[in-house]
Amino acid sequence: MKVLQKPTNARGTRDFGPKEMALRSYVFSIIKGHFEAFGFQTIETPAIENLSVLTGKYGDEGDQLLFKIVNSGDYLSKVIGDPLALGSKALLPQIAEKGLRYDLTVPFARFVAMNRNDIAFPFRRSQIQPVWRADRPQKGRYREFYQCDADIIGSDSLVNEAELIALFQSIFESLKLRTNLIINSRKILAGIVDRLGATDLFVAFAVAIDKLDKIGWDAVALELSANGFQTNQIDALQKLFNFEGTNATKIELLADFFADNTLGLEGLAEIQTVLRLADLNGFDNSNLIFDFKLARGLSYYTGLIYEGKSVDVPFGSIVGGGRYDNLTAAFGLPNMSGVGISFGIERIIDVMRELDLFPSIQISASKLLLTYFDEAGQALAINISNQLRKANIPSEVYPDIAKIKKSFEFADKKGIPFVGVIGDQEIKDQTVSVKEMKNGEQHVLSISDLIQYMSAK
Amino acid sequence: MKVLQKPTNARGTRDFGPKEMALRSYVFSIIKGHFEAFGFQTIETPAIENLSVLTGKYGDEGDQLLFKIVNSGDYLSKVIGDPLALGSKALLPQIAEKGLRYDLTVPFARFVAMNRNDIAFPFRRSQIQPVWRADRPQKGRYREFYQCDADIIGSDSLVNEAELIALFQSIFESLKLRTNLIINSRKILAGIVDRLGATDLFVAFAVAIDKLDKIGWDAVALELSANGFQTNQIDALQKLFNFEGTNATKIELLADFFADNTLGLEGLAEIQTVLRLADLNGFDNSNLIFDFKLARGLSYYTGLIYEGKSVDVPFGSIVGGGRYDNLTAAFGLPNMSGVGISFGIERIIDVMRELDLFPSIQISASKLLLTYFDEAGQALAINISNQLRKANIPSEVYPDIAKIKKSFEFADKKGIPFVGVIGDQEIKDQTVSVKEMKNGEQHVLSISDLIQYMSAK
Repeated sequence: MKVLQKPTNARGTRDFGPKEMALRSYVFSIIKGHFEAFGFQTIETPAIENLSVLTGKYGDEGDQLLFKIVNSGDYLSKVIGDPLALGSKALLPQIAEKGLRYDLTVPFARFVAMNRNDIAFPFRRSQIQPVWRADRPQKGRYREFYQCDADIIGSDSLVNEAELIALFQSIFESLKLRTNLIINSRKILAGIVDRLGATDLFVAFAVAIDKLDKIGWDAVALELSANGFQTNQIDALQKLFNFEGTNATKIELLADFFADNTLGLEGLAEIQTVLRLADLNGFDNSNLIFDFKLARGLSYYTGLIYEGKSVDVPFGSIVGGGRYDNLTAAFGLPNMSGVGISFGIERIIDVMRELDLFPSIQISASKLLLTYFDEAGQALAINISNQLRKANIPSEVYPDIAKIKKSFEFADKKGIPFVGVIGDQEIKDQTVSVKEMKNGEQHVLSISDLIQYMSAK
Repeated sequence: MKVLQKPTNARGTRDFGPKEMALRSYVFSIIKGHFEAFGFQTIETPAIENLSVLTGKYGDEGDQLLFKIVNSGDYLSKVIGDPLALGSKALLPQIAEKGLRYDLTVPFARFVAMNRNDIAFPFRRSQIQPVWRADRPQKGRYREFYQCDADIIGSDSLVNEAELIALFQSIFESLKLRTNLIINSRKILAGIVDRLGATDLFVAFAVAIDKLDKIGWDAVALELSANGFQTNQIDALQKLFNFEGTNATKIELLADFFADNTLGLEGLAEIQTVLRLADLNGFDNSNLIFDFKLARGLSYYTGLIYEGKSVDVPFGSIVGGGRYDNLTAAFGLPNMSGVGISFGIERIIDVMRELDLFPSIQISASKLLLTYFDEAGQALAINISNQLRKANIPSEVYPDIAKIKKSFEFADKKGIPFVGVIGDQEIKDQTVSVKEMKNGEQHVLSISDLIQYMSAK
């Protein structure tokens, strides 16, 4: 006999069994429901994209983290040069033309560019699909994970930002997860470096302060210094960043700081407008926090940016997003402003688990297991189960004529809440003895009464 | 300005825009609903699997059609030998350890083997996910497509076959798609070759008659002859295959033909039992057709096999499945009998489109678009839209203060069925003028009346 392999998941990937799927479905269906309520139309794009679409969109590091697919057939035959002399990096584009999507944003931009004539703009699109990154796997970070995005593209109105904030509030209200939503604007960050006299150092500035939460001020100050910031600039920045206050006092402070800086004032006005529009949404918006230290890593944001955090598990963000003006330009469609929000679904699930926020969810699909002692009982069980299903009562038939004890153990292990037994008397009377597993309560019911009884459960 | 790329989808892959997604969601949600009603628990497995899990499970051709992922980093550094001397085929396992799943069955078998201690058997599992095959793309055949499977594993009871038949009937009843379900048993096929005195030629026999529909009897006869069947055997087979009759007369015919052949009689008894059990399901089962010419290509089937076809677009099958006894053996878990059914979701969608079976589905997520003339109207629109959403009425706010005509054109292009206009009078009265797009009917309604009106629409 040949030695059998002990199978494993590929590194950094996971199976989701019924229990995990029940929790995931709970979160996904709430998010999907709100996406629909807000008028977002779902699209799906393929997992496989041409590397020409993906490469160069995520920076050098991103390019390296793309999963690349070997060309079909005799892939070496088209290689120009000696593979070994070329080396892994130079050979790669010659043997791999396709890759797995790295996020949903670039495929979305491609989709919009390709379908520009059929789309009614502003286009509210939602997309919930897995993405792949050849990252080093670690706790809570996987190589295959879902993203969950909503974007409104083709309009520069700040009403859209307000709509996404309302979407954020309504989703987390439903999930019963307490959150803060931190907002800022790229224009405010640009205004700050302008006023510091460091306009040219904007990128280094944004990259450095994006790490503030993780590495702290001292390390950020060192990084700023290493990137060319003067001591007096860093001191001025520290003074600004040390300010604590309400949204209103922060806006006042910055209005003073910006003086006549157009970009900064524009960003500030946008923050004020968005806060005003958001306050019309009917939610408690006291969790909307203007924080001009927020930077967001991604380079394509051009306007408002935001980040959602759990109040009770504050480490790391669970939502991110912002406005972009040029996402589709790389695909030949310039001047298409949009704003998006991405729900970090994997982290949201982790946080909800940590806070024990999942309601008690039935893991089994079936509400009732039908079991029996003989062929006549089996026949009745098959018939009744199909009547139950037509009445929207998920049920299953135990497949074997076995000891009743065995079917009860099965129902218990699987978490099926009710077991219906069909014995001689039940066959004669066309009834079912139904038992509730959690409390042992038992009833003998006619088929129509059973349907009524189970419908109410 | 740099030359911009014109983006395309990778060959054989597709985007699904809102319209296509609406049709797909309609079919998926009906199938999912019935999977749940029958007690199937959903699992998901990762797209990426170790090639050790996938390779050798689909035959040589299947191995070649697996999409393989280049190892991360300096993938050439671990290659033993010169890549060019090795050639594409021998090099591949050295530079690619992972691949994309080819179907849902092998990952399911891996899942069951890995989680055998946590699963309550018989395990009813459903799985709806995309799979990938590096096939030559052609009309109706894609490199990335969804599979939609339900299996009951860990029981050899024929009640499970009957359950899957009831599942088949209930799904197509809901989809309003007329079907036939052709059933046979591998044991019957084995019994036939036994009785022909060609036991050793079983595989060639099954492969040949699997093509009967496509290539016709003459070509099949030639192939049988080329594979070692004698003329008298082929003639006997032709005579058998020419028989037309009811399920009952076919069973009679075969009972005679098999005489004392154990395997054949066992298969026949199973067909009889399954037909008897299926007839208890409450559906019209006149579309259940026993056809002993049905072979099914896949080699892992060991018992009952079946194939579903559209009555009105009969070319090709839209459902397939059968019983397997050794699916998990490759992963170290022998003797785990199961039975599965796979709904060819992409083809079902194509057939339903061809037969115009889709109900009129609203493509836009929103039922109502709110539009306005000024900032005060905008404020009221934001507020009302969030009240509508809380009452489960999907709605969106037109983001700009623009000519009303423009927002009506937008609603029309997007297919939003109602537009609510908020002008000076409406602001004063706290009302909305709502217009139904398809007939121009108009009402001025208070917010609570609007919610009631839209709820009924």
